[in-house]
Amino acid sequence: MNKSFQRVRNLTPAQAIVAYYFVAIAFSFLLLRLPGVLQPGVSMTYIDTLFTAVSAVSVTGLTVIDVSQTLSVFGIIVLMVILQFGGIGIMSIGTFFWILLGKRIGLRERQLIMVDHNQSSMAGVVKLITEIVKILLLIEAIGALILTVYFTQYFYSFGEALLHGVFGSVTATTNGGFDITGASLQPYVDDYFVQIVNMLLIILGAIGFPVLIELKEFLSNETKNFRFSLFTKITTSIFGMLLVVGTIGILILESVNAFKGMSWHQTFFGALFHSVSSRSGGLVTIDITQFSDATNVFMSALMFIGASPSSAGGGIRTTTFAIAILFLINFARGKNTIQIFNREIELIDVFRSFAVLFLAGTMVIVATMLLIITEPNASIVEILFEITSAFGTCGMSLGLTGDLSSVGKVIVMILMFIGRVGLISFLFTIGGKTDPTKFHYPKERVIIG
Amino acid sequence: MNKSFQRVRNLTPAQAIVAYYFVAIAFSFLLLRLPGVLQPGVSMTYIDTLFTAVSAVSVTGLTVIDVSQTLSVFGIIVLMVILQFGGIGIMSIGTFFWILLGKRIGLRERQLIMVDHNQSSMAGVVKLITEIVKILLLIEAIGALILTVYFTQYFYSFGEALLHGVFGSVTATTNGGFDITGASLQPYVDDYFVQIVNMLLIILGAIGFPVLIELKEFLSNETKNFRFSLFTKITTSIFGMLLVVGTIGILILESVNAFKGMSWHQTFFGALFHSVSSRSGGLVTIDITQFSDATNVFMSALMFIGASPSSAGGGIRTTTFAIAILFLINFARGKNTIQIFNREIELIDVFRSFAVLFLAGTMVIVATMLLIITEPNASIVEILFEITSAFGTCGMSLGLTGDLSSVGKVIVMILMFIGRVGLISFLFTIGGKTDPTKFHYPKERVIIG
Ligand SMILES: [K+]
Ligand SMILES: [K+]
Repeated sequence: MNKSFQRVRNLTPAQAIVAYYFVAIAFSFLLLRLPGVLQPGVSMTYIDTLFTAVSAVSVTGLTVIDVSQTLSVFGIIVLMVILQFGGIGIMSIGTFFWILLGKRIGLRERQLIMVDHNQSSMAGVVKLITEIVKILLLIEAIGALILTVYFTQYFYSFGEALLHGVFGSVTATTNGGFDITGASLQPYVDDYFVQIVNMLLIILGAIGFPVLIELKEFLSNETKNFRFSLFTKITTSIFGMLLVVGTIGILILESVNAFKGMSWHQTFFGALFHSVSSRSGGLVTIDITQFSDATNVFMSALMFIGASPSSAGGGIRTTTFAIAILFLINFARGKNTIQIFNREIELIDVFRSFAVLFLAGTMVIVATMLLIITEPNASIVEILFEITSAFGTCGMSLGLTGDLSSVGKVIVMILMFIGRVGLISFLFTIGGKTDPTKFHYPKERVIIG
Repeated sequence: MNKSFQRVRNLTPAQAIVAYYFVAIAFSFLLLRLPGVLQPGVSMTYIDTLFTAVSAVSVTGLTVIDVSQTLSVFGIIVLMVILQFGGIGIMSIGTFFWILLGKRIGLRERQLIMVDHNQSSMAGVVKLITEIVKILLLIEAIGALILTVYFTQYFYSFGEALLHGVFGSVTATTNGGFDITGASLQPYVDDYFVQIVNMLLIILGAIGFPVLIELKEFLSNETKNFRFSLFTKITTSIFGMLLVVGTIGILILESVNAFKGMSWHQTFFGALFHSVSSRSGGLVTIDITQFSDATNVFMSALMFIGASPSSAGGGIRTTTFAIAILFLINFARGKNTIQIFNREIELIDVFRSFAVLFLAGTMVIVATMLLIITEPNASIVEILFEITSAFGTCGMSLGLTGDLSSVGKVIVMILMFIGRVGLISFLFTIGGKTDPTKFHYPKERVIIG
């Protein structure tokens, strides 16, 4: 069509997303250095501003500052804007590129909106994505409205209720993990209404853009014989299963510890909320340092898995985990193909899952070892938790973030970045251009394991 | 040929090995309950006897008893016999089954010794394996001779030197990990001759039976145009690389800690020996509780990888790790095939590697979490170290073994068992019988990571 579009077309999706990221971080850094962002008398070092920018753009929520004690109201609004860029912005830009460039061949969404590759479809893609962004913003607005009205019982001034309502809705929907209460959602530990609203918003942000697109398509009833894509079926199934497993796990592990002596509903919500939130939300209703080491390692695993691809979350992503599990089950059963929901998984996707899993595992181990060296006063559970929280862009912490050394901050920033961009965005575009092997060597078997 | 052979033929290799294992453990348990095995006045609970039997048969060396304070000379001889069963015995039986049943198709060794599947080749296989066992026993004997003569300078009586020489050679060659000094090889921390002999014996035991077979074939010069198998090339390369990486890693991590103020040769041997030994040997020349947490986590990773398949070692095995790494490199380069040493890796072997890696990783995480619960007084590094040591059948410990609860002992026993049998022995035979999928569903792509 025109040259700039051609240039965009020549960008691989990963390159585009990474480029968007760097620009967003640089821009956010500058925004956070604006006068009036900080409360009077408060100052922030450059590395702490950078850390906050990376954490906000990657919607992680790990923070070396106490937002409620550091940012002015204007600063909080700036932070909200950055969370929108990082959460919904990257989610939609990412989806846009994937769909437009058709790199993720066979993606159901692509079939839904574009018949062929000609440019006229571009408008359709833009329109669709704009619509979904509008829906997400609408969800945020509804969340903000509900929370604001509800919060009037907690705050004396309407202004404060509004600030807490809007920020609460934004941080939940974008899976931002930041808070302006100074103690996350701990003030609402017995307010199940606030918790339910937050959980719903977190899940809508973490379930993945394509799922939302299909849901809209399904509900609008416009497409004949509509069926949900394999992706949507897999990711929502595993998402739901992990929520249940996470809830039961935390419930059992803490029944003799933090939940001891609590009523059934306190226990249930305590487990459910942190199961939901550890998958990228990052908000807490309990001081999680009270949880046992076993629970914290368990939650580290949940954070490591993270949210859906093309969502506001991070981690290895649900589908990666699901395909690895499905592969193992089928392999043990002696089947060479993975069949699920009357479809067969492509071999290349199995490979990708394992590439992500292996690389992510190695990265977490190496980062943990580095932090053991750079943070001699921290326990290994604190470190592992911090690392998986960064990679899963979750944002929960056992308190290490504020004590991180400069090297430690850089390592955590790198993990937040990679966790949000997604390992596959690197691996995929590189590994994706199937470089047809010119000649083949004879194959030879090797003893494994 | 005859019925019993037919029955053996119907056993899958994994079933055969697991069966051999259970028999060996039961038999060893009974041996260790014989009168005269313990020193006068010493007693052992049933679970401790079982733990010792499992640890010895799996040639791990984790022990809830101090051998030097518990077993009589007769008991030590019994332990040596069990180590032979567990180390060389299972290595040869395993190799025998794999070769004979031709389950590991394409294995170079099979081509070397059998032209077809008819029974006349069975005699050849038996002959070859017997020969290799003889060579290993010869290596053990030479090691025992050297160590005994050398040890006369350390011990007053020849009898004691003999006992320490023979046991030392057996425990090193079988990668047994047990010691009768009460402090592993710590008394020889400055005796590099003893360390070099031990390292050579450990490596010969850990490098894998097929490698030894091919080395013999190569040195005997009997086969025209002999070439080493892909398996041998891969496993020896990665084995060597991991030794180097392990040495450098420990060296760097401990240069500011345990090695501080030591001479270069003390530092070098301290790092080299524990790099070699962590890959299944299990002997130590330094009190490893002096190592930093970072080093202990690093050594946990080395133990997790472990030794070659079809060796006296455990872990996920070198080839599993090598293929995973090769896959990742090739994948990132955009290649669909893994080419190495002018050969192509079979797809099924890539799948197996990932199955082993994923399952082993999950197993270690779950076992670690269980031990966090059952051993509330242990640190997570102690636990992780203990678990990977058991799975890698290494036998090093930060001191937790003796304090394990009964449930903890059972978990560690299970890991030693699985680590020694090898995860693939389960996965392989099950996944190996390619159950040809009757019909195919349409394939559909899924967003990963
Ligand atoms: K978050
Ligand atoms: K051992």
